[in-house]
Amino acid sequence: MSKIGIIMGSKSDLPVMQEAIDILNQFNIDIEVDIVSAHRTPEKLFDYGKNAHTRGFSVIIAGAGGAAHLPGMIASLSPLPVIGVPVKSSNSIDGWDSILSILQMPGGVPVATVALNGAKNAGILAAQIIGSSDAQVQEKIIAYKEDLKAKVLESSKTLEY
Amino acid sequence: MSKIGIIMGSKSDLPVMQEAIDILNQFNIDIEVDIVSAHRTPEKLFDYGKNAHTRGFSVIIAGAGGAAHLPGMIASLSPLPVIGVPVKSSNSIDGWDSILSILQMPGGVPVATVALNGAKNAGILAAQIIGSSDAQVQEKIIAYKEDLKAKVLESSKTLEY
Amino acid sequence: MSKIGIIMGSKSDLPVMQEAIDILNQFNIDIEVDIVSAHRTPEKLFDYGKNAHTRGFSVIIAGAGGAAHLPGMIASLSPLPVIGVPVKSSNSIDGWDSILSILQMPGGVPVATVALNGAKNAGILAAQIIGSSDAQVQEKIIAYKEDLKAKVLESSKTLEY
Amino acid sequence: MSKIGIIMGSKSDLPVMQEAIDILNQFNIDIEVDIVSAHRTPEKLFDYGKNAHTRGFSVIIAGAGGAAHLPGMIASLSPLPVIGVPVKSSNSIDGWDSILSILQMPGGVPVATVALNGAKNAGILAAQIIGSSDAQVQEKIIAYKEDLKAKVLESSKTLEY
Amino acid sequence: MSKIGIIMGSKSDLPVMQEAIDILNQFNIDIEVDIVSAHRTPEKLFDYGKNAHTRGFSVIIAGAGGAAHLPGMIASLSPLPVIGVPVKSSNSIDGWDSILSILQMPGGVPVATVALNGAKNAGILAAQIIGSSDAQVQEKIIAYKEDLKAKVLESSKTLEY
Amino acid sequence: MSKIGIIMGSKSDLPVMQEAIDILNQFNIDIEVDIVSAHRTPEKLFDYGKNAHTRGFSVIIAGAGGAAHLPGMIASLSPLPVIGVPVKSSNSIDGWDSILSILQMPGGVPVATVALNGAKNAGILAAQIIGSSDAQVQEKIIAYKEDLKAKVLESSKTLEY
Amino acid sequence: MSKIGIIMGSKSDLPVMQEAIDILNQFNIDIEVDIVSAHRTPEKLFDYGKNAHTRGFSVIIAGAGGAAHLPGMIASLSPLPVIGVPVKSSNSIDGWDSILSILQMPGGVPVATVALNGAKNAGILAAQIIGSSDAQVQEKIIAYKEDLKAKVLESSKTLEY
Amino acid sequence: MSKIGIIMGSKSDLPVMQEAIDILNQFNIDIEVDIVSAHRTPEKLFDYGKNAHTRGFSVIIAGAGGAAHLPGMIASLSPLPVIGVPVKSSNSIDGWDSILSILQMPGGVPVATVALNGAKNAGILAAQIIGSSDAQVQEKIIAYKEDLKAKVLESSKTLEY
Repeated sequence: MSKIGIIMGSKSDLPVMQEAIDILNQFNIDIEVDIVSAHRTPEKLFDYGKNAHTRGFSVIIAGAGGAAHLPGMIASLSPLPVIGVPVKSSNSIDGWDSILSILQMPGGVPVATVALNGAKNAGILAAQIIGSSDAQVQEKIIAYKEDLKAKVLESSKTLEY
Repeated sequence: MSKIGIIMGSKSDLPVMQEAIDILNQFNIDIEVDIVSAHRTPEKLFDYGKNAHTRGFSVIIAGAGGAAHLPGMIASLSPLPVIGVPVKSSNSIDGWDSILSILQMPGGVPVATVALNGAKNAGILAAQIIGSSDAQVQEKIIAYKEDLKAKVLESSKTLEY
Repeated sequence: MSKIGIIMGSKSDLPVMQEAIDILNQFNIDIEVDIVSAHRTPEKLFDYGKNAHTRGFSVIIAGAGGAAHLPGMIASLSPLPVIGVPVKSSNSIDGWDSILSILQMPGGVPVATVALNGAKNAGILAAQIIGSSDAQVQEKIIAYKEDLKAKVLESSKTLEY
Repeated sequence: MSKIGIIMGSKSDLPVMQEAIDILNQFNIDIEVDIVSAHRTPEKLFDYGKNAHTRGFSVIIAGAGGAAHLPGMIASLSPLPVIGVPVKSSNSIDGWDSILSILQMPGGVPVATVALNGAKNAGILAAQIIGSSDAQVQEKIIAYKEDLKAKVLESSKTLEY
Repeated sequence: MSKIGIIMGSKSDLPVMQEAIDILNQFNIDIEVDIVSAHRTPEKLFDYGKNAHTRGFSVIIAGAGGAAHLPGMIASLSPLPVIGVPVKSSNSIDGWDSILSILQMPGGVPVATVALNGAKNAGILAAQIIGSSDAQVQEKIIAYKEDLKAKVLESSKTLEY
Repeated sequence: MSKIGIIMGSKSDLPVMQEAIDILNQFNIDIEVDIVSAHRTPEKLFDYGKNAHTRGFSVIIAGAGGAAHLPGMIASLSPLPVIGVPVKSSNSIDGWDSILSILQMPGGVPVATVALNGAKNAGILAAQIIGSSDAQVQEKIIAYKEDLKAKVLESSKTLEY
Repeated sequence: MSKIGIIMGSKSDLPVMQEAIDILNQFNIDIEVDIVSAHRTPEKLFDYGKNAHTRGFSVIIAGAGGAAHLPGMIASLSPLPVIGVPVKSSNSIDGWDSILSILQMPGGVPVATVALNGAKNAGILAAQIIGSSDAQVQEKIIAYKEDLKAKVLESSKTLEY
Repeated sequence: MSKIGIIMGSKSDLPVMQEAIDILNQFNIDIEVDIVSAHRTPEKLFDYGKNAHTRGFSVIIAGAGGAAHLPGMIASLSPLPVIGVPVKSSNSIDGWDSILSILQMPGGVPVATVALNGAKNAGILAAQIIGSSDAQVQEKIIAYKEDLKAKVLESSKTLEY
């Protein structure tokens, strides 16, 4: 069965990345979580990127902040779709560096970038990718979207003005 | 077989979006190209988004510029993974509006955003998504990456200084 | 009599949008408030936009944050003047995404954009629009502006330095 | 009958502002065009702003670039709805100064801001404002939107790929 | 004797502008402080700007935030040197709107802009302007600069590392 | 009689700075023009800044681009009012670096900053500073402003639409 | 033996710059710390820059915020490599002014700029510079990098999800 | 003798990076130039970074554009000082992505960043680094700076105004 790799540059990114973990757990999709620092553990980065597709992963979610090289370097090394989560870390300039370092990849090496701190959306996107060839997972996405809708419709009933 | 939907907000986006068409043709992946304007053809947008997953599409690539609502609205309507291409159109402020309108989606509704004018990468990412459950397509991605590498190595031999 | 529709993408936008409600109540202009999420309730968005002008609305005020598609999509669907309020929501990058997603609409589909979190001004602008064909409402605007002036002149008397 | 005042800070803004003139002519809406410089003809600004609502205007469209004070000062002086067009003039920093000077008005004094160089949308918005109390003009807006739609649908038939 | 006019768009700007008051009091330069809102008291703005040079002022310091039109409109109306203080007010986008609205004046109508919230520097600049034709005031500036220097040199003696 | 020093960081800044020269010549105000590079001729910078007020200058206009240190360093060394012209030089990032390096001076050391490439306004501001203690020069400023006004009023007569 | 000069524009920069002090102490590299303000102690700046290379320094680390001229002016005066630390000081606009004032030096006069508030990295870079001709120091850098790696690998063992 | 490694992400960066080559040739410092793409030749990146310090290099200059990961990844792998040149490549957003991706490195892994397209300064900085332990090279830097000064002083003699 499909498995999603979730990695982040530092343990301090975990509070942001937890939302990807939670939503994929909610979808009952198998995950593996690890810390891989492009700048401090380049050998681990290399091994991770080179081997992920042979280790049963379908998608990799990589979160990092500041000069965020982790998603792009994994994308350089792996044929898998890589989802990048720009993290507004303590050393980031309001998130602009994180976004641009992840988004602006050169032709040939895409990273599927989500919103700043958008780890939940990274998880949903990973599920959608699996769902694009797995009808059961796609059904879960459809149900999830129906649930979002129901909650908004419900909340509008409570408006007082 | 998997099919990719490529849509854009205006025919003037075609020169940028052509790179997605070309790379997917090169990968022999089936595509369907259309113009869907969120702001001028909202009914077509609605139909497209609602029905894409039942019409055999696995992934949708949507390109738009300025206040670029097309990718996000398709993502709102479809359970498929949606790849957004921010286009630096003539009415865009150096591309910042296109990027932020596509990237900064709320929790629950992701758009996989690629670089400004990065339609080639959108095509490759779509292929990677198909490749995540189709070994033959993944092989093509691996070969493509090997080819990129060979070209760079070749180019370094021609350096004179 | 003229009625203003006030909508927002999420109940969390209400504290900002309340200022539009309050000022229109102060002007005794009829309002109807609802939550319409472009990304989570697209069918409601569609119905709302298509029918607003036949339901007695003269103007629509729409507030949203981040990749804020609500005002532009309503403008796509309705012939009414649409006022957009960029909300500095928790997922927004200092408001820049909200502003650009609302302001930078393509030719043919305007959104009357006000300042970041400028819901009070959205309410006043809606009143001015009604006042442009309703002398009584225009008188209220004139009186409101006189009142603003009087308060500033009064405050300058209390300066000590 | 309703009349729209179109003013701009300098004759060099005319090529941009011409689009507002053209679309309002197309809608057969009465206009009056003038040059009013907040910084070089402050007395004319004052007279214009103070008297516009008694001279038969329903809406004012004001375009300016750089530190663009014209729309906001007219809004300060007039009870009419004022539409601001940020112009990317030769002395502007990519339009950011024009946008922020027009958009970020304080509470109490709104300017309905359209996209950078969005004079066509300013004209359409002015027509929508008139249309909100004039069914005939609203019909023209509806027809205009149908026409936009038809053109996009037509253009999608010519796609070759 | 020379007198400096200090004005601000709102009483809420006083905590920032107080630094201009304090430094000019310290230099024993005559000041007059007032609240003049370009957007809420345009007539007072007009009177102030038209008459300042005949009322004994040598320099005007004007502080405002957001779409800050006060300094530029005073500069439009007065032949005096006008110093603009961009205020990071509660409705400003990190100060960028305040800075650009004050700085980017068109050719012919300068505003001497100081740093964001730089009211102290506005006061010193006003004193330097008076000092450029008044040797006694220039001496005070020279002494002030010597004092700044002495304090830095002193502080470096206390470094421990 | 008062004299204005005009300096720039490089001869390549002359086309921009020429506007300051021209307007001051037009006002018949004495000027002296020189090239002083903060980064390449620091000793000349030092001499210039230390001695300008004893050499008969009333005001210094300094233009520079990129990491533009010339205006601020002159302001550090001289008690005179220093006007900074941010130049959009070939190595500047759209002028943002030039503006921020000149504008954002620390408390105690102001630079009177004008718009990007705003050398004409720097010249007018210098004249206004002289005019604040020289009625004859102030008269020229008043006449100049009248002339600006007349030209705008004239241009509005030629509008055809 | 090699010595590093660490200077900053104000004692208020010390909490940021302390990280450079700490890391160089940890590497047992000789340092000298001082406060040198480009804008308030220009003579000290001049002496420091002119003489640093004859006083036994190998590298200078200079930290400053806002219109940060200290690193660039030292680079103007000294043949030594100068490392600039942009400080997000209280008067800085989110650090953008500090970064651009230090980074965007003209051709001929480099400043080795590190990340916003990146004083630790400035210290490491200084050590790397010494290490480029001193094998013992280079060994310390290698050991430091190994230690960083070990800590990350350790932290990944503690992940629970 | 010391040797400088100059690498770039693509042959298209050569016109910018040529200035580093030229200035180091002018200083008679040994260089080796290569193309190393972080995203297309990750194995070569790895080998280069791991072995540079044992291959006789003292400093590495790395230039790249867009999501520019080359300098930071080399810094991750090598104990040598790494100088990063942000290149304004065709896929870059006015250079902001290149700058932030290179500059904003996390604590522990510095990159000495120079100005956008500042390859000449990268070369000079590399020479200064060598010069910090090699008196002969430092003499060349001093002479170079004298020459810059002489050229500016000469150019100021040719001013006509």
